[in-house]
Amino acid sequence: MLSKCMDTIKGLKLKKMYEEDFFLTWEKTMDELKGVFAVADALRALREHNISPRIFDSGIAVSLFRDNSTRTRFSFASACNLLGLAVQELDEGKSQLAHGETVRETANMISFMADVIGIRDDMFVGRGNAYMRQVAAAVRQGHADGILAQKPTLVNLQCDIDHPSQTMADALHLIHEFGGVEQLQGKKIAMTWAYSPSYGKPLSVPQGIIGLLSRFGANIVLAHPKGYEIMPEIEELAARQAAESGGSFRRTDSMEDAFADADVVYPKSWAPFAAMQQRTLLFDQGDQAGIAELEREMLTQNSRYQNWQCTEEKMKLTKNGNALYLHCLPADISGVSCETGEVSQEVFNRNRISLYKQASYKPYIIAAMIFLAKVQDPSAGLLALAAGQMPRQMK
Amino acid sequence: MLSKCMDTIKGLKLKKMYEEDFFLTWEKTMDELKGVFAVADALRALREHNISPRIFDSGIAVSLFRDNSTRTRFSFASACNLLGLAVQELDEGKSQLAHGETVRETANMISFMADVIGIRDDMFVGRGNAYMRQVAAAVRQGHADGILAQKPTLVNLQCDIDHPSQTMADALHLIHEFGGVEQLQGKKIAMTWAYSPSYGKPLSVPQGIIGLLSRFGANIVLAHPKGYEIMPEIEELAARQAAESGGSFRRTDSMEDAFADADVVYPKSWAPFAAMQQRTLLFDQGDQAGIAELEREMLTQNSRYQNWQCTEEKMKLTKNGNALYLHCLPADISGVSCETGEVSQEVFNRNRISLYKQASYKPYIIAAMIFLAKVQDPSAGLLALAAGQMPRQMK
Amino acid sequence: MLSKCMDTIKGLKLKKMYEEDFFLTWEKTMDELKGVFAVADALRALREHNISPRIFDSGIAVSLFRDNSTRTRFSFASACNLLGLAVQELDEGKSQLAHGETVRETANMISFMADVIGIRDDMFVGRGNAYMRQVAAAVRQGHADGILAQKPTLVNLQCDIDHPSQTMADALHLIHEFGGVEQLQGKKIAMTWAYSPSYGKPLSVPQGIIGLLSRFGANIVLAHPKGYEIMPEIEELAARQAAESGGSFRRTDSMEDAFADADVVYPKSWAPFAAMQQRTLLFDQGDQAGIAELEREMLTQNSRYQNWQCTEEKMKLTKNGNALYLHCLPADISGVSCETGEVSQEVFNRNRISLYKQASYKPYIIAAMIFLAKVQDPSAGLLALAAGQMPRQMK
Repeated sequence: MLSKCMDTIKGLKLKKMYEEDFFLTWEKTMDELKGVFAVADALRALREHNISPRIFDSGIAVSLFRDNSTRTRFSFASACNLLGLAVQELDEGKSQLAHGETVRETANMISFMADVIGIRDDMFVGRGNAYMRQVAAAVRQGHADGILAQKPTLVNLQCDIDHPSQTMADALHLIHEFGGVEQLQGKKIAMTWAYSPSYGKPLSVPQGIIGLLSRFGANIVLAHPKGYEIMPEIEELAARQAAESGGSFRRTDSMEDAFADADVVYPKSWAPFAAMQQRTLLFDQGDQAGIAELEREMLTQNSRYQNWQCTEEKMKLTKNGNALYLHCLPADISGVSCETGEVSQEVFNRNRISLYKQASYKPYIIAAMIFLAKVQDPSAGLLALAAGQMPRQMK
Repeated sequence: MLSKCMDTIKGLKLKKMYEEDFFLTWEKTMDELKGVFAVADALRALREHNISPRIFDSGIAVSLFRDNSTRTRFSFASACNLLGLAVQELDEGKSQLAHGETVRETANMISFMADVIGIRDDMFVGRGNAYMRQVAAAVRQGHADGILAQKPTLVNLQCDIDHPSQTMADALHLIHEFGGVEQLQGKKIAMTWAYSPSYGKPLSVPQGIIGLLSRFGANIVLAHPKGYEIMPEIEELAARQAAESGGSFRRTDSMEDAFADADVVYPKSWAPFAAMQQRTLLFDQGDQAGIAELEREMLTQNSRYQNWQCTEEKMKLTKNGNALYLHCLPADISGVSCETGEVSQEVFNRNRISLYKQASYKPYIIAAMIFLAKVQDPSAGLLALAAGQMPRQMK
Repeated sequence: MLSKCMDTIKGLKLKKMYEEDFFLTWEKTMDELKGVFAVADALRALREHNISPRIFDSGIAVSLFRDNSTRTRFSFASACNLLGLAVQELDEGKSQLAHGETVRETANMISFMADVIGIRDDMFVGRGNAYMRQVAAAVRQGHADGILAQKPTLVNLQCDIDHPSQTMADALHLIHEFGGVEQLQGKKIAMTWAYSPSYGKPLSVPQGIIGLLSRFGANIVLAHPKGYEIMPEIEELAARQAAESGGSFRRTDSMEDAFADADVVYPKSWAPFAAMQQRTLLFDQGDQAGIAELEREMLTQNSRYQNWQCTEEKMKLTKNGNALYLHCLPADISGVSCETGEVSQEVFNRNRISLYKQASYKPYIIAAMIFLAKVQDPSAGLLALAAGQMPRQMK
């Protein structure tokens, strides 16, 4: 596995990833995406052979989570630890940010010894990705100005637009399930809305999935009830990319249509882009009552689409009745975490091992994103780690 | 010291500890308990000779504290750090657990790179230990299913039944004070209830102490006022184990009786098992008023036993008036932390250094529990560390 | 740079820093202060040449912040990580301190494997520094009593009296800007009060600055409106030290007077010592209403001095109109973080890079303080690190 990864890496143009950030998958070349997959596999192979892939001997990884998180938080912490970095959380409640400090200032103040900054900021449309770019620009400038000895790499741990560590992990799972990145060509992938009794789930996963998988020649169907539109520019992007890669992209308002003969289904709740825009507006106006009213409306709207649930019956419509079921977790499971939710208990339980494996790629994807931003010749770097044979654990 | 420990370890059957968890001391064989003591001493000797006993080069230790903690939290963090692991706290407030995620799912999601999971869950009778076993079973299954590359070891950092890192540290303190584990044979040990103006202290220490020290031939007296019974099965266990080990176990409702000619006294407040059961029931019913009423009753009941205090007068009853005084800390000290408490200021102050030493074993006990679960041939592993002579600190 | 630092270090008497704490700069000899500067520069040079200056292979650094903090928290974490220590936060909310545990007990319980304890405690006059000394005395005693295998070094991360990691970083910035510590001789330094719409900023920076820079022959002017006096003993100290070092110290109630021909200006808000004493008294009496009333009074008093702002106009009064502008950050910037504040946007923006550089020394200063308390022969230690050429990062 390791030598296969290194062969792949040698054939890829990865130079521009050095000293760069990771904001959105569609800003990366195909070579760069394949590089992340190959390095993730290589790091996993090293670790599983009890070889430590540590490239840092001290160094700080700053994490800033503006939303609750279990798996992304642990994935980021694990990835940084694997490479030799200590995670230092920027807890805005414990900091002096209220003193009126600017983003530029905070970004520099936390970065004197920071090699990585990981940010999750997905709560407000129009904000999260923009904030990440501000931080990244500030530390790049700080490095250019001689303030920072090194330029920290920014890793997007979920924003209002994309969730690259999730979708890249999802894609790596597909690659392993189907036997190679080229096997995604021609596969039908149903990214569909699903019912949830909760409100306001981010758009970053559906947008990120169609924005990524359309690069690989897949036939993508985005399904949702009318009124649950995502950002229009991401749909346009997916259509363009699908055309370029020899795949296709279309939208439907029928879950059944999307599921029909699908190789992969990804049923997941999200909030309409228009409502999320409205929410940002109300938040800016400090209109808490307006936000509460919006939430009520959205829940009422949601409740009309309780049949948008991934059941065994719907799964029977898929390719051989046996599509690969994906979810970023946690899922709203009917009869487990809620009365009626995104997926039936039967479908979820039947796919549990696969779902957990899907999640298991995330720490390696994040580690690969960091590795490629830090190691100028990744192929030589991996070779050196493999040759060094530093045990990760005394057995 | 180090070579003595290694000689001891060579003679013990420790193979079954490899890849195992640590829930309750009485599930472990005598060899295994002695193995933990010997490895703890060896790790301490290495560290005190400025040799780093680090066996991991990266790796995550997850800590989950469902109750406040200073010393156990720091002991766990120190133990993990000593072995080369980074602690990542699972803070249920910051996580998405409210989304209805199952224990199985969370356990796997936090464990992709976790080598250890340490849990404190002592608030509800019938719950803590059961929860730990659920987590351990989930990651064992996850490992078997190919989801987790390694099986994290679960360390019980205090549950509703036992507090093994505490009681093993207590025992190691006794072993050092008396000059060997065999010296516990025939010693009179008084595990007694003591008055505290607070409510609801866990049963894990008294239960854990009688469940552990009855293995070593000690004559154990459990003393408490009527109505402060502990779990009956632990009493039965202690009696059975004491008989098997050539010691004895009995119960008394007189602190003086327990103290008479005792070699060791461990006076400590706890809540009655029956009340703790009632509390779990009320909690399950969401009956906050009932819980408050129960608390009032318990405090009233407590106040009748203010004379259950460890004073110099009572200490005079012990062997040569000079029993070893133990406490897991923090103690309720009369005139310091409360008006009347578990122990008088005089007794506490006279024994302070010994008490702090008692506490100092905990990090090494936890490290030894982890070491034995991770290193297949512990004797060879310690020898390799000693021979490697990696300095812990440049002096 | 590195060999220059090592030459400097060889000529200094630093032996007494070994196994010591860092409470106040004026308790240290001139050699010791110069030693901190030189080691900080050396550690920075090593790191910037991609040589890891890690002196620990495992070890815990305890951090206790009793006030919000971004840059000092990250500086401490970065310094500890650079040397190989893992930070473990003592969060008083999560600990059992409420159980009536004494400072002595907590200090020992968190220190079984602690090499460093960093404390910020600046909220109450008469308390912070005293608390740090209690902690340091407790662990020193614990070490002497055989409880702790090593004596943790206490680093003052800001108290009610001094802020040594800040002021030493400020001084190192001046040394680099002016080309050597001897260049501070004869420089005019204006430590002046500045207007802020907020209340109760600590006295530690102005006191620390005059208490430190008066050691180096500078001509120090302390400026503030009447009623904003600092601790009188620090003024006396500064005057005495200035006389001894061939500099001078005087006080003025005119910002313009202080700025006139100054080489360095440090305009910063603080609360009057008398008010802070009153606040401690009210806090001890539990008089929340009294504290609120005091705050109102202080804000009213503040508002009379809105002209105490560092503007371009005032900067023109300084040496060649071009004094070095210092601030510990975050600053209250007029039109950015508040309507009217300590400094105009123009002055702040023009000096931003310099301000960020000033802040960048703090992690290295803290690391040097720890290094000198841990490495008996610092010159030999740095030489060994440089010769070892352990890369901090695989590039």
